[in-house]
Amino acid sequence: MRFARIATPEGLTFAVIEGENDSALVARQIAGTPYTEPEFTGKQWPLSDVRLLAPTLPSKVVAIGRNYADHVAEVFQKSAESLPPTLFLKPPTSVTGPFAPIKIPDFATKVEFEGELAVVIGTPCKNVKAENWRSVVRGFTIVNDVSSRDLQFADGQWARAKGIDTFCPLGPWIETDIDSFDLDNLAIKAHLTHDGVTATKQDSNSNQMIMKLGEIIEFITASMTLLPGDVICTGSPAGTEAMVPGDRIAVEIEGLGVLENPIEWA
Amino acid sequence: MRFARIATPEGLTFAVIEGENDSALVARQIAGTPYTEPEFTGKQWPLSDVRLLAPTLPSKVVAIGRNYADHVAEVFQKSAESLPPTLFLKPPTSVTGPFAPIKIPDFATKVEFEGELAVVIGTPCKNVKAENWRSVVRGFTIVNDVSSRDLQFADGQWARAKGIDTFCPLGPWIETDIDSFDLDNLAIKAHLTHDGVTATKQDSNSNQMIMKLGEIIEFITASMTLLPGDVICTGSPAGTEAMVPGDRIAVEIEGLGVLENPIEWA
Repeated sequence: MRFARIATPEGLTFAVIEGENDSALVARQIAGTPYTEPEFTGKQWPLSDVRLLAPTLPSKVVAIGRNYADHVAEVFQKSAESLPPTLFLKPPTSVTGPFAPIKIPDFATKVEFEGELAVVIGTPCKNVKAENWRSVVRGFTIVNDVSSRDLQFADGQWARAKGIDTFCPLGPWIETDIDSFDLDNLAIKAHLTHDGVTATKQDSNSNQMIMKLGEIIEFITASMTLLPGDVICTGSPAGTEAMVPGDRIAVEIEGLGVLENPIEWA
Repeated sequence: MRFARIATPEGLTFAVIEGENDSALVARQIAGTPYTEPEFTGKQWPLSDVRLLAPTLPSKVVAIGRNYADHVAEVFQKSAESLPPTLFLKPPTSVTGPFAPIKIPDFATKVEFEGELAVVIGTPCKNVKAENWRSVVRGFTIVNDVSSRDLQFADGQWARAKGIDTFCPLGPWIETDIDSFDLDNLAIKAHLTHDGVTATKQDSNSNQMIMKLGEIIEFITASMTLLPGDVICTGSPAGTEAMVPGDRIAVEIEGLGVLENPIEWA
């Protein structure tokens, strides 16, 4: 099932997205949240008549940095053995939705995209064993872990560089059929449109993750309780590059669709 | 005014704490939150009959690291000029209240206290100028930025070391009379009780802050929108030290009282 949060003429709501043909998708309103069995209200809209929002309002966004060896090499000029995966947090105020602008403030001079598989938590959990990870996950979505590389290095800590308002696009929806994904072979791509020309900049696969999903969830929940709607960003592969106002960035993951955002000045 | 969140026999509620004599304080229930003019319900309890909780449920806790030169020297063996202040985030799940245990997991082997002045935001705000900081602050409270020093250095990023459940005690309440505080001369102390002996380990003053409150709020809100209830931790002075289960840690700030917590194994 695909859960979205949408803006309709009657206000904001959660919905289930149905249909196979992209041009004929329908958003069926649900009464509650994506974290329980959906109760349909009977209202529905063609997806083209509503606006997709970030599909979750997370209480926290926990991210794994340095989880792809090729990205560690390009950003840090070091091996993944010498710089193992590490945790960081993005604030809820950085979250934005599909097609919403990523807004660059004037003091951020090298703002890069990072296309990543995102995990949405379905139930409060602590001390989850790696092999039980599926029991706490509601579904997958796409995240763009937008990062101001200049501030990241200047600050040492990454909270500001990765925590600016709009620097966490999420969407287009939460796909709950997690068993339909082959995590040993899931294509992750990012396409940058600059001066009207679109080029594929990231072209990788989830099989390159250093820490796998189960390990990640065991690692995080050994320290932190995760809550329904919380998001885990599983790390970016290589190919990240600076974006400038006027560009468009589209992150594409097999089975999840595309998360596309324009770049603007703040 | 002093706003608290309390557990009463009838449930959790916000309250205003009144009275001057510590043994005769009264908690008067309010209908809403601390971020609007209080509307009293008429119910009240002697403070000794209720339990104080963290006075805010922040959507984010933004912290300034390395904001006291003597603490930079003791932790990093470097000068504050070479390692300027930096931003980091503590997750909402790390927040706990007065007298609640700080719970140390077995993989955290050097868990230190950091007594700090905390700012509680009163209104949604972005791009606040330093001189206008008072207009967005609801009040002050005390925070203990508990930090697992071993994990902090091993991870490089501080999210895990400072983000473990219970590693952000807040309280005892939000004091809204911010003009009664002399920020150029505010005593900040931490008293550690170990083996039944209490010793003052931190004994500093807010006049040692490198970034002042106005600068901090301008710096953060240039990047991130702050929301009512969000907390800013303004940095720890020197004197931090490891705690072990069985200890008690009390952070004391002039005009705000004491934030005390016992240490336990998780």
